[in-house]
Parts: sequence; structure tokens; C-alpha cells
Amino acid sequence: MAKKPLRIGLIGYGFMGRAHSNAYAKVGHFFDSEHECVLQAVCARDEAKVKDFAARWGYQSIETDWRQLVARPDIDLIDIAVPNNLHAEIALAAAKAGKMILCEKPLAMNPLEAEKMVEAIEAANVPNMVWYNYRRCPAVTLAKQLIDEGRLGRIFHYRAKFLQDWTINPELPQGGAGLWRLDAAAAGSGVTGDLLAHCIDTALWLNGPIHSVTAMTETFIKERKHNASGKVEKVGIDDACAFLARFDNGSLATFESTRYARGHKALYTFEINGENASISWDLHDLHRLQYFDHRDQGLVRGWRNIHVSDGDQPYLKNWWVPGLQIGYEHSFVHQVADFLKGLDTGTPARPNFRDGLATDYVVDAVLNSARSSQWVDVKHA
Amino acid sequence: MAKKPLRIGLIGYGFMGRAHSNAYAKVGHFFDSEHECVLQAVCARDEAKVKDFAARWGYQSIETDWRQLVARPDIDLIDIAVPNNLHAEIALAAAKAGKMILCEKPLAMNPLEAEKMVEAIEAANVPNMVWYNYRRCPAVTLAKQLIDEGRLGRIFHYRAKFLQDWTINPELPQGGAGLWRLDAAAAGSGVTGDLLAHCIDTALWLNGPIHSVTAMTETFIKERKHNASGKVEKVGIDDACAFLARFDNGSLATFESTRYARGHKALYTFEINGENASISWDLHDLHRLQYFDHRDQGLVRGWRNIHVSDGDQPYLKNWWVPGLQIGYEHSFVHQVADFLKGLDTGTPARPNFRDGLATDYVVDAVLNSARSSQWVDVKHA
Amino acid sequence: MAKKPLRIGLIGYGFMGRAHSNAYAKVGHFFDSEHECVLQAVCARDEAKVKDFAARWGYQSIETDWRQLVARPDIDLIDIAVPNNLHAEIALAAAKAGKMILCEKPLAMNPLEAEKMVEAIEAANVPNMVWYNYRRCPAVTLAKQLIDEGRLGRIFHYRAKFLQDWTINPELPQGGAGLWRLDAAAAGSGVTGDLLAHCIDTALWLNGPIHSVTAMTETFIKERKHNASGKVEKVGIDDACAFLARFDNGSLATFESTRYARGHKALYTFEINGENASISWDLHDLHRLQYFDHRDQGLVRGWRNIHVSDGDQPYLKNWWVPGLQIGYEHSFVHQVADFLKGLDTGTPARPNFRDGLATDYVVDAVLNSARSSQWVDVKHA
Amino acid sequence: MAKKPLRIGLIGYGFMGRAHSNAYAKVGHFFDSEHECVLQAVCARDEAKVKDFAARWGYQSIETDWRQLVARPDIDLIDIAVPNNLHAEIALAAAKAGKMILCEKPLAMNPLEAEKMVEAIEAANVPNMVWYNYRRCPAVTLAKQLIDEGRLGRIFHYRAKFLQDWTINPELPQGGAGLWRLDAAAAGSGVTGDLLAHCIDTALWLNGPIHSVTAMTETFIKERKHNASGKVEKVGIDDACAFLARFDNGSLATFESTRYARGHKALYTFEINGENASISWDLHDLHRLQYFDHRDQGLVRGWRNIHVSDGDQPYLKNWWVPGLQIGYEHSFVHQVADFLKGLDTGTPARPNFRDGLATDYVVDAVLNSARSSQWVDVKHA
Repeated sequence: MAKKPLRIGLIGYGFMGRAHSNAYAKVGHFFDSEHECVLQAVCARDEAKVKDFAARWGYQSIETDWRQLVARPDIDLIDIAVPNNLHAEIALAAAKAGKMILCEKPLAMNPLEAEKMVEAIEAANVPNMVWYNYRRCPAVTLAKQLIDEGRLGRIFHYRAKFLQDWTINPELPQGGAGLWRLDAAAAGSGVTGDLLAHCIDTALWLNGPIHSVTAMTETFIKERKHNASGKVEKVGIDDACAFLARFDNGSLATFESTRYARGHKALYTFEINGENASISWDLHDLHRLQYFDHRDQGLVRGWRNIHVSDGDQPYLKNWWVPGLQIGYEHSFVHQVADFLKGLDTGTPARPNFRDGLATDYVVDAVLNSARSSQWVDVKHA
Repeated sequence: MAKKPLRIGLIGYGFMGRAHSNAYAKVGHFFDSEHECVLQAVCARDEAKVKDFAARWGYQSIETDWRQLVARPDIDLIDIAVPNNLHAEIALAAAKAGKMILCEKPLAMNPLEAEKMVEAIEAANVPNMVWYNYRRCPAVTLAKQLIDEGRLGRIFHYRAKFLQDWTINPELPQGGAGLWRLDAAAAGSGVTGDLLAHCIDTALWLNGPIHSVTAMTETFIKERKHNASGKVEKVGIDDACAFLARFDNGSLATFESTRYARGHKALYTFEINGENASISWDLHDLHRLQYFDHRDQGLVRGWRNIHVSDGDQPYLKNWWVPGLQIGYEHSFVHQVADFLKGLDTGTPARPNFRDGLATDYVVDAVLNSARSSQWVDVKHA
Repeated sequence: MAKKPLRIGLIGYGFMGRAHSNAYAKVGHFFDSEHECVLQAVCARDEAKVKDFAARWGYQSIETDWRQLVARPDIDLIDIAVPNNLHAEIALAAAKAGKMILCEKPLAMNPLEAEKMVEAIEAANVPNMVWYNYRRCPAVTLAKQLIDEGRLGRIFHYRAKFLQDWTINPELPQGGAGLWRLDAAAAGSGVTGDLLAHCIDTALWLNGPIHSVTAMTETFIKERKHNASGKVEKVGIDDACAFLARFDNGSLATFESTRYARGHKALYTFEINGENASISWDLHDLHRLQYFDHRDQGLVRGWRNIHVSDGDQPYLKNWWVPGLQIGYEHSFVHQVADFLKGLDTGTPARPNFRDGLATDYVVDAVLNSARSSQWVDVKHA
Repeated sequence: MAKKPLRIGLIGYGFMGRAHSNAYAKVGHFFDSEHECVLQAVCARDEAKVKDFAARWGYQSIETDWRQLVARPDIDLIDIAVPNNLHAEIALAAAKAGKMILCEKPLAMNPLEAEKMVEAIEAANVPNMVWYNYRRCPAVTLAKQLIDEGRLGRIFHYRAKFLQDWTINPELPQGGAGLWRLDAAAAGSGVTGDLLAHCIDTALWLNGPIHSVTAMTETFIKERKHNASGKVEKVGIDDACAFLARFDNGSLATFESTRYARGHKALYTFEINGENASISWDLHDLHRLQYFDHRDQGLVRGWRNIHVSDGDQPYLKNWWVPGLQIGYEHSFVHQVADFLKGLDTGTPARPNFRDGLATDYVVDAVLNSARSSQWVDVKHA
């Protein structure tokens, strides 16, 4: 039976543009669906580069103006993989044009933008998702499954960190290709919107809404050369952010992110402690889940180091054989697979834009708290 | 040459009374000093039990009233190993009697008490220490040495946790032998004074003074049977506490402690991230230090898992041979060895009472912040 | 510039057929070459299934008789991904037809077959490789690089294991789809040719030729139902094999493989101890390399846990960003990338058939030793 | 009630003399018994040094001739902690004198000596033990308990290693204080009798008798200065040894030991794979046991990392509280505690001399096999 084409128009060809393209190219090799991804067009301002990208990945056409792309009738889905300050405008236009949207995270520069995006996409009534890919590392999905089964019991604690060390060098400039994450005008915030947003999305998914937060932020390197102006300019982003939180379910949490933690490239970890069991995970070994079950006999009780590679564990039956690990890129493949399944079944996959808004509310409360040195209540999406 | 006797009068024979006695009994077998510990007397209220304890450990005499012990001219040093609410009264009397004092941590129930104790001991001008033993796990001492050598460069982050899981069962009562730590009247506070005090002492030692904090505490089990009254009573201690901090050196910190973290028996960990290098440690494997040095060649750069058991590492030449680990109890032996060395050399070992006061000031600020939901500045000792 | 097509004819669509197809499909997205893989045809006996496979992976045509495939002028390269007992016949025909060959490991059922295959392929003078993919896990490639730089000094020890646990259940049958590895007629041997062959290939690459071996094998489950006959038949393969070896360079080695090691799904580990440094690796965390350098200062010397994900480490600049791991499948992509680079440069990639023969000689010596209970010298390829 | 004195006469004050003295000094503080150790006398040839040792440890008297010690009526037990070549003569004399004996391992220089020692001690009918202390690391004792409970089911594999790296430097001399282990005349053999003897003792205890072995040994540094002669002399010991074994229970084993494995100070590890469960242990983290139970639900199955520090685990209720680790020296304390319990109950503790002979038989078969390059059957004690 012929599959239904899902004609994708990708905007942006950076790190995320590649990760998404790889997912579209691979998903059909490993996951069944009535739909199949068609690499219809890729869009970016630099024509030569976007042509190269299209050739490498097999996109059938290119655009250099995203408005043209959004206007094309042969595009079903707009994938927004550009800096944060461009998300809202593109998404509003795409929603208006009735396109499905996959949008990179964080959803927007601030809740105001995000609310408009949610309003637009829900008015358009089209499938939509935000690329919080870590939900779909099999070990993380397994964690969700164990929590949903009630194995942990009452939750007491949640803690998450996302630690990196790539901006310690003060000679590193801000702005421009590959470095827009250091430019407040393009990124909105620093580690809070970039890294903690991932931690928050996972936390909301695993542990429910956050009630209130108290936060601190710091910018260790106060000035950096800007790639646009060529001048040394004040750094507007937060280099580091930590916050305490109380969840609606009564559990306590600590969150921390920085790009100044020597030795950690991408240490996204979370741990959740329940009455009966605990779980922890680390992105550096994303194929493993640590699980402690107090109901195990005391004599042989210990943290179980689970190599998540068996066919009965999430997504794994579609890959290789037990013991053979998958990696980072597979989380994107899974997200596309689930999006397609959502199209097949009519039950949309998540996190959708509204979920992305929920995370943006927490990000906003965190930044407000850091500015005001007060506890701040979190608005719920 | 005959050694100078240091005649010890120990008050309390619980967990810490045993740990200290073991240290006094062992130290001379492994460490050289002009002084030798003499187990002169042990004191506790239950005469039969204290006699048994004395017989087991070789104490030459007993007392059942600590005032009698303090009054004895044949006692050089009073070791206070009783619940926190008794520290101040005993210490003030012992200082007045001109005795050296080794006092269990936290120094006092609150800064007011602790200030009086410092005043008294400094007026008496006698050697004094607080039993913050973890400074003397060889791996922790090595961390201090690496920091003092300047290997880490500018410090960006400090994080510490002390996680346990032994009070999750709501049937566990509060108060009395072995459980006084759950009784606010005896302990002053919960995990903050008991566990975070350790984290704070280490942090002040490794990373200097803390400037300000914002904290939250929680009591998950609101009522427990009290062993004294036999009745269910409100629980006055904090079951969990987390706080954010800024150090005087500009670094940011997170601290957390709980007795509700399933799977962790005594997970005291700290990590410190500097410009050039990072260090982390975990009490569960206290003989190891994790060290990352960014100056290592990139191709083979990674966290070094250091098995701290070589003769050139702190305290180790006095024990066995490389590869053979020592354990928890040795931190107490080292503390006594350093105290004796302080007596030998005239340069007193630390942490002394004033250092203990500094930790109590942080504990107090943390509890104040938790009550007020405000950032609180920390008083310096 | 248009790329030169490399028209692939794949034989077999099992576990390895998928792994190879994925590599062909992905390599051009991540690695540059003058050549590009074209999925020209896939061949297997079951027409319906091979059609499905072709549709899923984008093969342009199918064959159900490998002789037809080999005869096609529009095929440049034959990929042999079928059970071991079919390797020789296909390879001899393909070599005769002047096709390049990529052959699954082990090269042949025995050295006699393998010698003929080497003779044929060298006479045909076409590029050829054996799919010993683990050489191209970046951490393993890095190990090779460190050894070649002379960092380890004189080598004293090599040890390798490949432990699995999937055949402990005596109800598991032998023979047929997915289970031909348990059938001596199809596989030639058990763990020795299947798993130890990987260990041996890596060892020869990293540590040079093996001089002599003494081995033992065991078949724990003596009889299993055969899927072909439907009857319980004697099991002809070795369930476990261990051997001692002396390398030509004077180092001593232990090798072990089994499918009866509870708890290990695919524990392929090796360790090499040199005068100055040691290296170890584990397939379960294939993105990490353990490295110990004795020249590090004693105080902070320890095993370095290297997260092999930085751009200066083998193959990694072509993937994501530091800290984000790749997985099992990428070793195949790298093998194809290197094969293409060999075509580009004229310096063929390895391991070639002659390298595969060298491994088969060791496998043969091991099996001979197990039969004879004698030390056996290894023939060099 | 007064305890029965056990008057100890220790011969030797080296590494083991200290470890044993510490055990005698501590055991009564932590373990109950009707007997108490009395440090009656220590004996060594250097009078000044033995006096210092006696003063440090509290021995009441000294001897400089072991024959005098053995002859003393106020000695109940002779502890032999001298180089291997002196074990037999002392033990025969002590047995003749009716003394209990605790003898360092390996029991003797060869089976002939060991047989005579067994004969003598069994004729004397006095309690006797060999200091294979690792049986009494709590994690190892726990392993034994799990095996005895039948949790593992049929055993398929046993593997053990004892890797060190302290003799790689060719400038290191042989012979004399601290270095007699490198002198064949004093030690009998190298790593085989020193390190593999430990592995073998544990293996026989956990997995029953060994049927046959094939081995290889190597001496990497052929000549070293001898401390006695001051001249460069041929090295007579084995620097490294590896062997394959078959146990009587049908399981297969690999054993390896070396002092040339860079990065390993004292890596004594063993692993045992059974039908239902597996266990592994590592001396570098001796307070942990790794346990995998296939009967755990597949979804959350993994190696359990057991921190052996709870009161229901072997020996632990006598020490501190959960989470606080003990170390190397405690294995000796436990051995003395069990020896005393043997005296209390009349059921002697083990390993006794006959058990030590069993290990010596395996050591002898291993060395014979290495010399002959043949499989050798092991004599059973």
C-alpha cells in the first residue's frame, strides 16, 4: 500500500537542521507508518550553502526566504530550526497557512510570544510539536513508563542538572553562526532557555506541574566580542542558573545549568526519589537507566544499572539486538516516528506547543526570580 | 622516650562514642606523636551500660554525671559525644575547668550558644576541635591540597548533597536512644544541622566563606510517635533542605540534604568546578577522588578516577600498601592524629570552635531563609 | 561535481543486511567522498520479503538468486551478508566476475576456504573488506592511534572477552532464520568464529600477530531442537571458548567468549597493558575509552574515563557536538566511509580478505588446540 | 564474666605482622567472644626494631629467636607472618609444641612441605588457619552466602584476576625486607603463589574443586640486583601467570595474575556466572558487590551495585551504620573474630591447613603446566 507523503519544509541547516534531516531520512527504515517523510524543501538565506545542504540530504528544492516556503502549497509541515528570535514570526505565518509545525525549543523568546503561537496553532488545529527530543531517549521514556506504573510511590525529590564547559574561554565571541546561543538578542536567555528548558520539559512530563521557584543566575564573562559588530559588547545572557522548586505534588527540586562546569560536555542528568523506588539518568551514557527498588530483598538491594537495549524496552525492538547501544540522534528519529504515529492514529504526539508554553512559563518564572531575588509562582499552561 | 599522656574523658557511648574510642585506641599504632591517648574515663547516665562500654574499650574508670567528669583533675580533654542540646552546657563547664575539648558537630543548637562556647574556649585558651571528620578522608584532604596548589583556577561552581533514606517509614518514632536526631528538642534541626553541617564545613574549608543563601525546607512526615511521651507528636525537624548560595569568591553553589532519597544510604558528594580543573567526591566510595584537568591533551582528556591509596597521598603512608582501601573510621583516627600533632607542634589543628561557629552561622541563615522565603546574608565567624 | 556511483548488490537482509544498508544510506549525509553509494539491488530467496526490504530501504531492484546478482553488469560491489557457509562460494564467483566485495565475518568456514577466497580476490585485484566493524568504533580507533604513537611502550598483556547470555535457555532451537549461529553446518563454529573472531581481529590490529595458543571449548547444552528437521539434534557448536596466547611481541594474552554469562548482553571488552600506559574498552559503553598513563603525576594519577565525542577524536567531527554519543550502527557507517576513502585515494581500507584470513588462522588454531589439548602455533597470513 | 585469654606469639612484624596485630587489637572492641586476644609476645631477629614494634602495638614481651617463642608455655597461639620459606619449619615446631597456628599464605613452598604441615597440625589436633583474608571481606562472604542459597543455579563460568603494576621498573631489586616476594628462594614462586593463591582459595571456597589446568608463566625482567649479594642475579620468580581451568562442577574458568598491569594496584576481581544469576567483585572497591539476577523483570533488569554496608549483610552489624564503608584491614579482624568464635563453639573456622594444602596443590599444578605446556590434573587435598 502506498504511503501518504508528509512533505517537509525545513528552515535552518545548522546543528538542529542536520539532526532533523537525519531523523526524516532514517525513520522509514526502522519504523512503520502509513505516512512517509518527503524531504520537499530546505530554506536558508545563503543560497550556495543551502544548495549544498539540499544535495547532501536529498531535499528536492530550496528556498532562501522562509515566507516563500510557508506559502508553497506542496509543503505539509514546516520545521523551524532557526534561532529562537525567529520562532514566533515563522510559526504564526505557518499556522495561518495551515501547515503542521515542528518547532525547535524553547518555543519562544518569552511567554507572550509563546501564548500567541499556541493560540495560532490551536486555531489552525494542525498537528504541532516542540523538539524536546530527550523525552525519547529510550531510557528516559522507560523512566516515564515506570513512573506511570506507580512504581515510585509518593515522590519526594526531583533534581536535574545540565552542565557544559564550552564557554569558559573568554576569547570566544558571541553572535553569528554557531554562536547565536551566546547572544541575548537571538537566544533570549542563556543556559536557562537553552539547557534548563530541556530539564524543565522532562520534569513537567515526569513529575507534573511546578508550583514555585527561587533562582539565581550569573554571567561570569561580562563582555565578549560580538561577531556582528566586531566590537566587544556586554554579554546579555546568563552563563549559569540554579533554582529551587516546589512541585504541585509536594516534591522538592533543585535545578542547575551552566556552561562553566569543567569536565562536563553535556551532563544532563535527572534523578527522582519516590517512596518505593528511585530513578536516575545521565545524557553522557544515555543508553543506561539507574533504578533502585526498595522492595528488592535487603541483602541484595542496590542500584540496578540497566542497559536499555532490549526489545521490550521503549523503541528498541526497532533497532539492533540486545547490548548494542543507540545514540543521541535516535531521540530525534523516535520523535518523528511518534509524530507519524500521531498522524496515523489521530492521537497527536507531544510535547505540543501548549506543552512548550508550560516550559516557557517556568523559564520565565526562573528568570523573574533571579532578577527579583524572590520566590515566584509559576503560571500553568 | 616516654610519651606525654593525653587523658581523655569521653561523654556519651553511642555511635560517635564508639567512633572516637576507636580512634583513640588506634592512633598510636599507626601515627607517631609525642603524645599518647589514655582512655581515662567514660561518662554516661546508665551505669551498667557505661561499665560494659568501659570494659569493652579499656576505659580505666567511669562516671555517670558529666559534672563529676569535668571536675576530675586527672582528665586533660573532654570529648563531647552527646546530643546537640547538651553541647553548650558541657563545653562551657569544661572550658571553665581548663579542659581541652573535642566536641561533636554541629557545635551548638544555634549561633547564640555557639558564640558563648567560642568565647569560653578562647578565654580558656586550650586546644579545641569540632568533629567534622570528613575533612580527613584522604580523598577530601587531597582535594584541599589540589585547590590550595591553585590547580583549579578561578572557581565557578560548588555543589554538595548529603542524601539518605532511613526515615521514609512513617512508623519510625522520634526521640530517645539512636533516634534523638529526629527530635527537634534534642537536635535543634533536622538534616540541616545534622547532614548539611558536614557539607557546609567542607565547603567553607575548600571554597571560603559563603555570602548569602536562599533555602527551602520540608517535613514530609508531619507527626511521629515520640519515644519519651509514647504519644504521636508533631515532628519539629526538617526532613529535607535545599539551598542556593553565593560564595565570597563569586562562585555559585547548590546544597541539598534529605533523609527521603531512596537508594542513598549516605551519599555525601561534593563537586567543585574551576577554570582549569574540577574535582568530585562521594562518601559511598570515600577512597576515590574524581579529577578532571582541562590541561590534559584533548585526545585523552577525561575524568581521572583516582584510587587514593598511595603513600604520597594524604595519611596513606601510615596505613597499608597501594590499592588497599581504608574506610570511614579512619577519618576519625586522622583527626586525632592531627590533634596530637597540633599539641606536639603548638600549631593547633582545625576545625576549631570558631570554625564550628562559622558553620552554625550558615546553618542559621539557611533555616532563616527557609522560614522567611528570602535571601539571607551569612554572618562570618 | 557529480559523484562516482558505487552500485551495491547486497545479499541477505537479516541483522547484518540492515546494518549495512543503514550505513550505505547514511554515509553520504555525514562523510565526504568522490563516490556515492547507490542501493542498486538486494538479493534473498524469499521474494515477498526481499521486496519489502527493498521498498523499506530504497533498493532499486531485487534478485532471488545470488548468481543472477553477481552476473549483473550494473553492480560494482557485492556485499555478502549471509550465513558463513555461503561466503566462499559467493565470494569466489563475485571475484571471478570482477566485483568488489564486502564480506561479513568470519571470512570463511575454515582456513582452506579462506585461502581460496584470498587467492581469488587478489587475482581479481579489486577492493575488498571484511566487516570487522568494531575497529571503527571511535574509541577503538583512538586506542589504535594511541598505540601507534608509542604511548604504551613495551606491551606486557592483552586480554579480551566477548560475553553474552542469550542461549542459556535449553528450549532455544538451532538453525534457521536468526538462529543459524547455533547450527554448526551454517556457522562453522560457535562463539569462536562468531564472537572471538571479533576479539582476534581487533587484537591482531592493535597488538600484532599471535604466536601460539592453548584453548578449551565447551558445549553446555548438548542437544537442541533443529529448526530444519524439527528434531532434537546434537549441538555441534562451541558454547564457550577460552584460550591463552603468546603474541609475537612477547606479550601474554587471555581470550574468552561465551553465550552463557548471565548479565552480559554483548560484553566485548579488551584491555592492553604497556610499560607506560594501559587502555581498556567495553562495547556496552562503546563511546568511552579508559586510559591510564603512568607518566601522570602520582598524586592525581588515575584511569581517565574518556567520553569519545570530541571533534579531534576519530570520526567525531562528522557527527554532532561534544558530549553527544553515537552508537553501534555508526561503526558500519565509518567502515563504508573508509572504504569510499580507499576508493578515492587508491589506498584500500582494511581489514581486507588477507586480514580476515589471519583471523581465521587464529580461530583454527584455537579450535585445534581445544580438540588436542595442546599448545598450537598460529599460521600467519 | 572474665574472658578466656588467647595468648598470641607473633613471628614477623612486616606488612602482615601489622595487619594481624591490628586485628588482635581491634577485634574485642567490635566482636563478642568468650575469648580475648592477649598480645603476649612478638618475635623477630632485629632486637631494636622488634622492641619498637612491641611498644607501638602493646606486645608484653619480645623474642629474637622463634624457637624460644615456640618453647614458651605462656603462648597459646603462634602466628607465622614471615616469608614463605620459613613457614614449614616453624609450623612443624609449633604443632609439635601443641600451639594453635595462624599461618600466612601460601601455606608452604610446595605441596610436599604443605602435606607435612597438615599432617603435623592434624596430629597435634589444635585449631589452625591460613590467612586467606579475602574470604572475609563482607562482599565476598555475601557472595558465598548467595551461592550457598542456590541463587545462581548451575555454574557455567568462573573468572578471576589479580593484577598489580609495582614491579615494572627494572631498577627494583629482589630480596630482603619488603622485596622478598621477588626472590624465588624466599617466596617459592612469584605471582602464582603470592596473588593467584588468593584467587584460588576464594575459587575453591565459592565454586568447589578444580579438576585440571593449563597455564603459562612469564618473567619479563630476567635479571635484577639482589639485595643480599648486591649483585645482578637471574630472577627466579614468575612475573605473570595465566591459566585455564575446569572445575569438578563442569564450569570453565580463566585465572590471571601479573605485576605488570599498568594502572592496577591490587585489582583482585572475580566473577561467577550461573544459570540464574551472576556475581562479581573487585578488591579496589571491596565494599561493593555486583549482582545480576535474571529473574528480575526484564524491563528493569540490570546489574545491582550493592553497597555492602547494611546490618543484615555479613559482619556489618558490628561496625558503623549503613552507607559507611569499612576497608582492607577489616577482613583480618573478621578472620580473628571467626577464629575466636570457632574456639567458643568448638566448630573451627576455616580455611585451615588442609584447605591451604588444596590451594597449594592447584598452585603446583599451574606451575607444572607452565613448565610442561600440558594440561595437568589437580590433586585434591
